[in-house]
Amino acid sequence: MASPISPPRGMRDFLPAEKARRESALATIRRVYRAHGFDEIETPVVEDHQRLHSGLGGDNEKLAYSVLKRGLDADALRSAADGDGASSLADLGLRFDLTVPLARFYASHRAELPPVFRSLQVAPVWRAERPQKGRYRQFVQCDIDIIGEPGPLAEIELLSATSTALRALGIDGFRIRINDRRLLVGMLDGFGFPADEHAGVLITIDKLDKIGPVGVVAELRDRGVTTAGVDALEEFLQRPQTQEFVPFGEKQIRRALPDGADDTVIGELVTIGRAATAQSRIDVQPPGDPQFARDLVVFDPFLVRGMGYYTGPIFEIEHPDFGYSLGGGGRYDGMIGRFLGQDVPATGFSIGFERIVDIVETREDAATASVVLLHESDADPAVLLRLKAELIRNGAARVRLERRTKNVKALLERVAADGFGRFASVPRDAAGDVTSADLAFRPLV
Amino acid sequence: MASPISPPRGMRDFLPAEKARRESALATIRRVYRAHGFDEIETPVVEDHQRLHSGLGGDNEKLAYSVLKRGLDADALRSAADGDGASSLADLGLRFDLTVPLARFYASHRAELPPVFRSLQVAPVWRAERPQKGRYRQFVQCDIDIIGEPGPLAEIELLSATSTALRALGIDGFRIRINDRRLLVGMLDGFGFPADEHAGVLITIDKLDKIGPVGVVAELRDRGVTTAGVDALEEFLQRPQTQEFVPFGEKQIRRALPDGADDTVIGELVTIGRAATAQSRIDVQPPGDPQFARDLVVFDPFLVRGMGYYTGPIFEIEHPDFGYSLGGGGRYDGMIGRFLGQDVPATGFSIGFERIVDIVETREDAATASVVLLHESDADPAVLLRLKAELIRNGAARVRLERRTKNVKALLERVAADGFGRFASVPRDAAGDVTSADLAFRPLV
Repeated sequence: MASPISPPRGMRDFLPAEKARRESALATIRRVYRAHGFDEIETPVVEDHQRLHSGLGGDNEKLAYSVLKRGLDADALRSAADGDGASSLADLGLRFDLTVPLARFYASHRAELPPVFRSLQVAPVWRAERPQKGRYRQFVQCDIDIIGEPGPLAEIELLSATSTALRALGIDGFRIRINDRRLLVGMLDGFGFPADEHAGVLITIDKLDKIGPVGVVAELRDRGVTTAGVDALEEFLQRPQTQEFVPFGEKQIRRALPDGADDTVIGELVTIGRAATAQSRIDVQPPGDPQFARDLVVFDPFLVRGMGYYTGPIFEIEHPDFGYSLGGGGRYDGMIGRFLGQDVPATGFSIGFERIVDIVETREDAATASVVLLHESDADPAVLLRLKAELIRNGAARVRLERRTKNVKALLERVAADGFGRFASVPRDAAGDVTSADLAFRPLV
Repeated sequence: MASPISPPRGMRDFLPAEKARRESALATIRRVYRAHGFDEIETPVVEDHQRLHSGLGGDNEKLAYSVLKRGLDADALRSAADGDGASSLADLGLRFDLTVPLARFYASHRAELPPVFRSLQVAPVWRAERPQKGRYRQFVQCDIDIIGEPGPLAEIELLSATSTALRALGIDGFRIRINDRRLLVGMLDGFGFPADEHAGVLITIDKLDKIGPVGVVAELRDRGVTTAGVDALEEFLQRPQTQEFVPFGEKQIRRALPDGADDTVIGELVTIGRAATAQSRIDVQPPGDPQFARDLVVFDPFLVRGMGYYTGPIFEIEHPDFGYSLGGGGRYDGMIGRFLGQDVPATGFSIGFERIVDIVETREDAATASVVLLHESDADPAVLLRLKAELIRNGAARVRLERRTKNVKALLERVAADGFGRFASVPRDAAGDVTSADLAFRPLV
C-alpha cells in the first residue's frame, strides 16, 4: 500500500511552471532592491525557542512551530507532563517572521556591517494558522530594513525601493497609506485615553475599515475604556473628512487630525511624501503621469498596523483591485535594543510575496532558445549527449531529450505546454559525425 | 541585559558578501541544469513525521529534527512519558535530504509531469549532527533526478549536466568514479557471502579508502561473517590492479573484477563512460584536452555509497585537491514505489554545495555599475532619492547613499571593501535642478 503523498496540511508543492514564475519574480525583486543599495543576508530557518518567544512577535508567537529537543529521556517527558508543559521539550522553533531574526543577526554582527545597514531578506517563514484560501503555513516574505538611520531618509528609501520593485513586477496603480504611531498616541492622549488603554483602543481602531465608525465606537464602549475618550473619538469620527484618505501636504494632514498634533512628526511625514513623489516622477516610464505621482502617498490618520513594536512612521500598500494590502511596515526603534542592550533606530518594509506572485507578469525564456530533441528509443546516447552539449554551447537556454512516441502530436503539444519553442528529430542513423547544424528545427505552436 | 545573539548551534548567518557569493554560485548551477533540461521544483521544508521515518533515509533518519504537535494537552504528555515516547509528540519533521520529499512529490503529482521527469531541487536540509568543522546542521543540497528512464541515458544526462555545472563554476580537474550495485552484489555472491550478509559487508568495504585492504579484512573477520567469503575477498584484494581506479573500457573493467561479472551491467557502464567522455570533449573550452576527457570517468570496483536504496549505477565526484567527494548519486529504482505503490525507475545526483561554494570563482558586479553617493547630513532627501532613481534608471546595478563622515578616507575604504566601484559627492547646495549628469564620479580603489 502506498503511503499518503500529499504535502503537510496548509503547505504547498511547487511544480516546474509555478516554481519558474516564483523564481522569476524573486529575481526581479532582488535585482531592484540590490540596485537601491540593499544587501541580502540569510539566517537559519530556526531560532532558539526562548528568543522566538520573548514577546517581540506579538500574536505570531502563538503560531510558531516548535522543534523537539533531541535525545529526550523519560524524566524530561515526565517533567513536561507534571507541569513544565510541552514548551519545556523544545529548544528551537521555526521563525514566524524575518524581523526577530534580523534583530538577532544585527546584534551579533554589528561590527562587520556599515553604520547604516540596508538589509534585504527573501525567505520563507512558518505559522501554524488555520489553513484557508490564500493563507499558507509556509510562505515567503521579502523584507527590507534600514538599521542605524534615525531620520525620514530611511523611510523614503524604503518606499521608493518598494514602489520601484512593484512596478518592475508589472504592478501599477497602488497607493501607499502612511501614518505615524506618535500621531496616534497624541490623538489618544488628546481624547483623554490613559496610556495603559492605548494598545487596546488601537486594536479596535485598526478595525475601522471593516466595522466602520459606528462599530468602532460600539466595541470601545463594550470594552469599558474611558467614556470621555470614546465620546471624543466618536465626535471626531463624525467629521466627514476623516473618513477618506487625505492627499499629501502639511495643511491637508493637519486638517485630518484633531487640534494639537505634533509639528515635527507632521513635518517628517511631509518630507517622506514629497521625496517619494519626486522619486516616483523619475521612476515611472514614461515619466510624467502627474496624477499617479500625486496620489502615490496618502495620509490615513487611522492606519494602525498590528504589531506593538512600532514607534514612528507606519505604512501599508493598497491596490484598488485587491481587498488586502500588498505589504507594509514601519519604524521600530526599540526592538534591536532587546538583543543588543543598546537602542538602534530601525525601520522596515515587507512585501507580501504570496499575495503578489499571482498577479505579476513573468517573462518566459525566448521560445527559440528552448528546444526539444526527438530521438528513437535505440539512439546512441553518446550522439544525443553531444548534440545537446553543442546546442547549449551555442546558446540554448533549455534542451530536453524526448523519446519519440507513437502519438507524436500529443508529445509535441505536451512539450509546447512545458514552454519549449522549437523541436528537431535526431535522424535514426545519426552517427558520430552528425552535428547540431545537420538538424532541421521546427517551431512548436 | 541583552539576549544571547548567536545563531543556533551548528547553523550559520550569512553576511552580505558571503550571501552574494552563494547566490551567484546557485544561479550558475540553476542556469546550467535548466539548459540541460532539468526543471526546478520545490517542496515544503517539513514532511509528515511518519513519512520521514519510513526507513528510506537510512542513518539520516536518526538525525532528523522533529516538530512538536500544536496544542498538546497534559494527557498527550503523560502518554509520551508513560511509554509512547517523544516521537508520539511530533507530527512533522525537517527534511534531512531531498530524495524522500522528491519521491513523495512525484507520487503526488505524477499525472502533471512528463513521462521522463528531470527534476532540479536547490534547497536546504537539516541534520542534528555533532557540529564540527565544515559540517553544518543546516546546509544546501543541489539535487538533479531523472524519474521514468530505465536505461543508462539517464545516468549520462546526470553526469554530463553535473560536470558542465562544475566547470561553469570554475572547478576543473575532477574525476567521476563509477560502479554498479549489481556488480557489487555479483562479486559478494561470487565470494560466497549469503545475501543477508551483503549490507554489513558493504558497510565495511566502503571504508577501503580509509582503513585499506588489511583493515577491511580484519573488520570483516571481527564481524564474524562467512569465513570463506572473507578469504576470497582477501585473495582478490591482493591482486595489484584492484587497488587503483581503472581507466574506462570493457576490457579494463572486466580485468578489475572477479570472473563471472555481469556482461549487461558492464556494457551499460561502458555506454555511460563513452557518452560522458564524448560530451566532455564538446563541453570543455577549448575543446580537446584529450587527457582530461579520457580520465573524466573511472571505474572503481569498490565504490559502495552509503545508502541502502541504490539498485544500479552509482557514482561519486572526486577532486585531487580535496579529501572529500564533491557530490555523488546513483540509481534507486525501488524507492518511488514505496509512495506510489508501483515501481518507477529513478536515478539522481547530488552536489555537495557547502563543499564547493568556498572554491568557486564568483563574478562581482562590474565595478563601474556600482556607485556610492556621499551626502551631507542635512541634504534634501527628495534630491538624494531623485539622483538615486536616475542612476538606477540609467543602468547602475547598485547605488548606496552614505552620509559624509569626518574620516572620509575610512569611509571610502569601507565602501570599496563592500564592492562598490565609484563614488560621487552630492554638492552641499544641490537643489531640484541637479541631475546625475552634474555629479563628478571618481573610482574607489
